[in-house]
Amino acid sequence: MVLQAELADYSPVKGCMVIRPNGFDLWERFQAELDRRFKETGHRNAYFPLFIPESFLQKEAEHVEGFAPLCAVVTHGGGKKLEENLYIRPTSETIMYAMYAKWISSYRDLPLLINQWVNIVRWEMRTRLFLRTTEFLWQEGHTAHATYEEAEEETINILDIYSDFVSNVLAIPVLRGLKTESEKFAGGLKTYCIEAMMGDKKALQAGTSHNLGQNFAKAFDVKFQSKEGKQEYVWQTSWGVSTRLIGALVMVHGDDNGLKIPPKIAETQVVVVPIWRTDEEMPRIREVARKITDEIKKSVRVKLDDRDQYSPGWKFNEWELLGVPIRIELGPKDIETESVLLVRRDTGKKLSVPWNGLSERIEQVLDNIQKNLFDTALAFRRENTFVTDNYEEFKEKNDADSGFFELHWCGSPECESRLQKETKATIRLIPFETKSEPGQCILCDKPSERRVVVAKAY
Amino acid sequence: MVLQAELADYSPVKGCMVIRPNGFDLWERFQAELDRRFKETGHRNAYFPLFIPESFLQKEAEHVEGFAPLCAVVTHGGGKKLEENLYIRPTSETIMYAMYAKWISSYRDLPLLINQWVNIVRWEMRTRLFLRTTEFLWQEGHTAHATYEEAEEETINILDIYSDFVSNVLAIPVLRGLKTESEKFAGGLKTYCIEAMMGDKKALQAGTSHNLGQNFAKAFDVKFQSKEGKQEYVWQTSWGVSTRLIGALVMVHGDDNGLKIPPKIAETQVVVVPIWRTDEEMPRIREVARKITDEIKKSVRVKLDDRDQYSPGWKFNEWELLGVPIRIELGPKDIETESVLLVRRDTGKKLSVPWNGLSERIEQVLDNIQKNLFDTALAFRRENTFVTDNYEEFKEKNDADSGFFELHWCGSPECESRLQKETKATIRLIPFETKSEPGQCILCDKPSERRVVVAKAY
Repeated sequence: MVLQAELADYSPVKGCMVIRPNGFDLWERFQAELDRRFKETGHRNAYFPLFIPESFLQKEAEHVEGFAPLCAVVTHGGGKKLEENLYIRPTSETIMYAMYAKWISSYRDLPLLINQWVNIVRWEMRTRLFLRTTEFLWQEGHTAHATYEEAEEETINILDIYSDFVSNVLAIPVLRGLKTESEKFAGGLKTYCIEAMMGDKKALQAGTSHNLGQNFAKAFDVKFQSKEGKQEYVWQTSWGVSTRLIGALVMVHGDDNGLKIPPKIAETQVVVVPIWRTDEEMPRIREVARKITDEIKKSVRVKLDDRDQYSPGWKFNEWELLGVPIRIELGPKDIETESVLLVRRDTGKKLSVPWNGLSERIEQVLDNIQKNLFDTALAFRRENTFVTDNYEEFKEKNDADSGFFELHWCGSPECESRLQKETKATIRLIPFETKSEPGQCILCDKPSERRVVVAKAY
Repeated sequence: MVLQAELADYSPVKGCMVIRPNGFDLWERFQAELDRRFKETGHRNAYFPLFIPESFLQKEAEHVEGFAPLCAVVTHGGGKKLEENLYIRPTSETIMYAMYAKWISSYRDLPLLINQWVNIVRWEMRTRLFLRTTEFLWQEGHTAHATYEEAEEETINILDIYSDFVSNVLAIPVLRGLKTESEKFAGGLKTYCIEAMMGDKKALQAGTSHNLGQNFAKAFDVKFQSKEGKQEYVWQTSWGVSTRLIGALVMVHGDDNGLKIPPKIAETQVVVVPIWRTDEEMPRIREVARKITDEIKKSVRVKLDDRDQYSPGWKFNEWELLGVPIRIELGPKDIETESVLLVRRDTGKKLSVPWNGLSERIEQVLDNIQKNLFDTALAFRRENTFVTDNYEEFKEKNDADSGFFELHWCGSPECESRLQKETKATIRLIPFETKSEPGQCILCDKPSERRVVVAKAY
């Protein structure tokens, strides 16, 4: 579907994709929505180097262990062998915090709230467009604060921004929660995430927000003088979402006929297709279609498709493939009755709507489609989320099909790792939403206080 | 000035800069202005891989010769030595056209009008922030057309977009014209450019637009079936502007006190500074300053600077350094007279303006500042542009100081290269604006039909 709808294509460089204009338009709209939210909360954008000196990556022990094996390495530049190898950024903590150490000296310089929109490289053997590519695009926010509490608050605020954007703009319901120790960011203290269920019932991590504590501050000597005149290390956070989200959009809302783009993020919200059977009918119908398009254009993003080398049926298929939320058909009969046929991409429902008041009606239907896409995805997740305390039952169900499982877990890395080995499913998150509930670990029977969400994942 | 105003900073990676939020805000505004113009003329954005296989760069002979020595080379990825080295893109013709060959098959697929906003790496030994860095940001447009004429028209249209943006938004006057054969893009047919005079009278190339002809189409086999059913190679163009333009902005409009940001591109167009001498005065003045700010906010981008840890004089210096076009001072006397003191950054002129009608007055003054910055730069260029037919006179003047020189040139690469060796100045462009005028080459006395512009350049 990604290829057919020309969202992306495989490139001649192994592991790298080309994001085509249809896909990049989505990314630009994601960027605009998120960027506005970041700026409203005091963040500013910047740009840090693509290259990270080998020695920088090595300054934080867990970090280098987690990322160095994934890196692309530049050994030559300007025709010469380099004195020190340069890694292409797999994430930018190290290069950014080396600068933060230079810029921050007093509590007056805090909080420092910086974000950047950049390309990232992490070596991948198996390519999957938008989900798993050696190069991808993302934003990474990196902040520094005077206290742990402030850093923790920032981490959660950002998770809320992500959650709001993915739910209300992409119409994808998410679970919010904490990653386990083994799944957290390499070098950080705690990782929060949002997780969504795809159309095949697998989980996709849709965004992460890390409370980094003072690990990097100590590694890069990022200190400030407090109000009381003491030298202290800053408390840091980092957080990101990537072009993966385009993959999520496709997998959550797509069907056999193609994409379903939520109205808020659609380049084209409405397409108008005039239908004529004879050459005599053509000019009048085209003219009315143009007038209707011009009228609608005042309130929504609309395209008139009056190309004459394609049949109406061919056009319907194309616009369905591209996921345009509303199609408006205008034929000779509609002209007689001064109405149009409005066809919803999400439900396929058709309704006749008079020209008079058409724009208002379209706006209502777009709102309705946005809501319906979310509700449908939420209902689907609920239908495919199972609560069980029986390991065999879980294994059987999980082997037969994917889904989200709410299981009790004792909190030990041993049980977590055994779970993964035996079922290929992982603990996706310790969700905020579930309430405390005493129980027994599904693996070892030790006490547990809360259910975690387990699923196979992308 | 770039460091002081926190536009950018040197990074620990040799040759690479960090673009700080003050600088990146400018780049975002440049992007928004240009992107709108590109989209209005039918272009769409996409994203192509950072990596270029060595074999791709080698497909066009002049191109590899021009760019390979500048490249950063990835030899290892994912912990292994690569079978084929990957170059970090120094420009993206080769990787993009490999895809174009796949996507274009019929005249119906043309024109293909794609742009991308990306990072670029070209190895530099001497770093100069924004002007000469190993990594920089740019946009590169790449189009394919059915005929030479269409490609040529596109090349010129884009040059006009660049010229309009740089003149009318950045308030920098430019010369438009053609590069000589030796200065044109490696692998292209013709390169058009815009050139601007900096504050030190040197030239800076501010944008280029290349008519690539069919060289790359042949190297990458980009063919289409014409309306007549014949297989033909496409005609291509590529064009770009970069973060160099931020350097131009600084060098053209800056003075000893700092930047002067043209109002159209200023993050903050107006800063309001309340001035109180006693603690009793403070609350009332602050309150009025806030009301005035809220009123102005409806029409312009304004900031209230009522920080109490800094003196008014300290604030004036800071906002002058940052180049904010208008400063508004509000003291006890201004409250009595229901007016403010408006101070222009460009001229330093102060005028008392009543509260009543303040917003309208500010808008007028902003327009006036925008125009004045352009006019001042244009007058400066004219004062420092010399027409001469005497080589010794030119050499003497050029040795003593920089400037633009309009000289006759026969068109031979020998004279061009001699000129460069003997004077360190180069032929910047063969301008559109000069009219045909018979004369003799200033170096060899052979006939010439047009003057070219010669200058020392960045």
